[in-house]
This record gives sequence, C-alpha cells and structure tokens, in this order.
Amino acid sequence: MAFREYLEQICSAVEGSVACSVLGFDGIAVDTFESRATDLDIPTLLVEYTTILNQVRAAAGVLQSGNVRELVISTDKLTAMSRPLTDDYFVVLALSPDGNWGKARYMLRVVSPRLQQEF
Amino acid sequence: MAFREYLEQICSAVEGSVACSVLGFDGIAVDTFESRATDLDIPTLLVEYTTILNQVRAAAGVLQSGNVRELVISTDKLTAMSRPLTDDYFVVLALSPDGNWGKARYMLRVVSPRLQQEF
Repeated sequence: MAFREYLEQICSAVEGSVACSVLGFDGIAVDTFESRATDLDIPTLLVEYTTILNQVRAAAGVLQSGNVRELVISTDKLTAMSRPLTDDYFVVLALSPDGNWGKARYMLRVVSPRLQQEF
Repeated sequence: MAFREYLEQICSAVEGSVACSVLGFDGIAVDTFESRATDLDIPTLLVEYTTILNQVRAAAGVLQSGNVRELVISTDKLTAMSRPLTDDYFVVLALSPDGNWGKARYMLRVVSPRLQQEF
C-alpha cells in the first residue's frame, strides 16, 4: 500500500479533513492527499508548519522532555495535527476548526506504524 | 476570584495535571499553580513554550489563517496545552502524557473567559 492510500484513508475517516501529508523535516512533501478545496495555501502552510515542528523538536531536546509525539496548532481557519514518523519524516493532518480532534488523533496513531513501514 | 484560584480549579478538574500558568507573550509568568512535583524544569519549559507560541502566532499571521486558538505540544514526558487570553497573555496547562486531553481542552475553554475578565 502506498503513502497516498493511507493518507486518503485518514482523510476519509476524520470528519472535517482538508488534507493529509507525509513530509520531510526539510519541508519537502513526500506525498499529499487533499480531500477538499480550501482558500488556504496548503503547501505554504505545510512549510511554515515544518519550521515550527523543527523548533518544537529543538526545544524538547533542550528541555530533555523526550521526543515530540504530537503537535497540534489550531487557528480560526484550520487545525493542523502531526506525529513524527522517523527522524526525518512526519505525517500531518489539516482539518477544519470544527473537525473531530479525537478521531484525528486516533487515526494518526493507528496509521503511523503502517506509514513507518513504507520507509 | 484571583488567577491562582482559576488555575487550581483547572488542575483539580483535569486528570494528570502538573501545572497551570497565566503568562505574558514575553515569557513572564503572571501566576502559576503547580499541582504535583515533576523532575522537569517547569519555569524554563514555559519560557521555551512562549517562544514557540510566538512563532506560531507569527506564522498564522503570514498565512492569514486567523488567530491562534489552541497550541498543543506533546512529548514523551509532558503535554502542554494553551489558549491565548488577550493580545498579551495566554494560559497554559502542563499535564502528563497520559493526561485527559478532552477534559483539559474543555476546562481551558470554559475557564478562559473568566481569566480574561481578570485583566
């Protein structure tokens, strides 16, 4: 099963999904599935999001609080939820602010080990 | 009711709470309630967390994705969940990784308007 199918699986299971992507910590997307149109610039958002996730990883290192498991950023227009997959890659799900957080966390947790096997 | 009482109220309602704090976006804490001992350096963590939250606010501005509503950073040892209160202040709840996310989000959402009234 390819990345795209897993990303589609996550989007179809989570109410309010906008897009799901596997990215490198360098900000370059390996694969992205967009489940619905939005006026937001998703590729630019993903690059900004990667920058923040890198800062969070650096901060976690300084604080010796262990590895980053999840990062959730919720704004008026979008919620972005992510999990690191390997030292170099992570998965991020973008959903509408009224999207289902519980289902999103659950799906990312369940699908992540399968995505990891694809590397 | 003072800040401290609201912070204590949040901690006592959320399973796994470690500390709850009202901070300025300059990283200076207005008030902090620590509900249980931890080997993590909470004050330093809060300053690092403020830095990240400022970066997220700046990124949200660039992307025109609206104001930041919530930021959640979960590491192996700690989950930190926050909500902006005013342009200058925010509330953050630190809880153990197995803490109750749903209850934490709910309590921050319910208590935030009361904290805002204190300013």
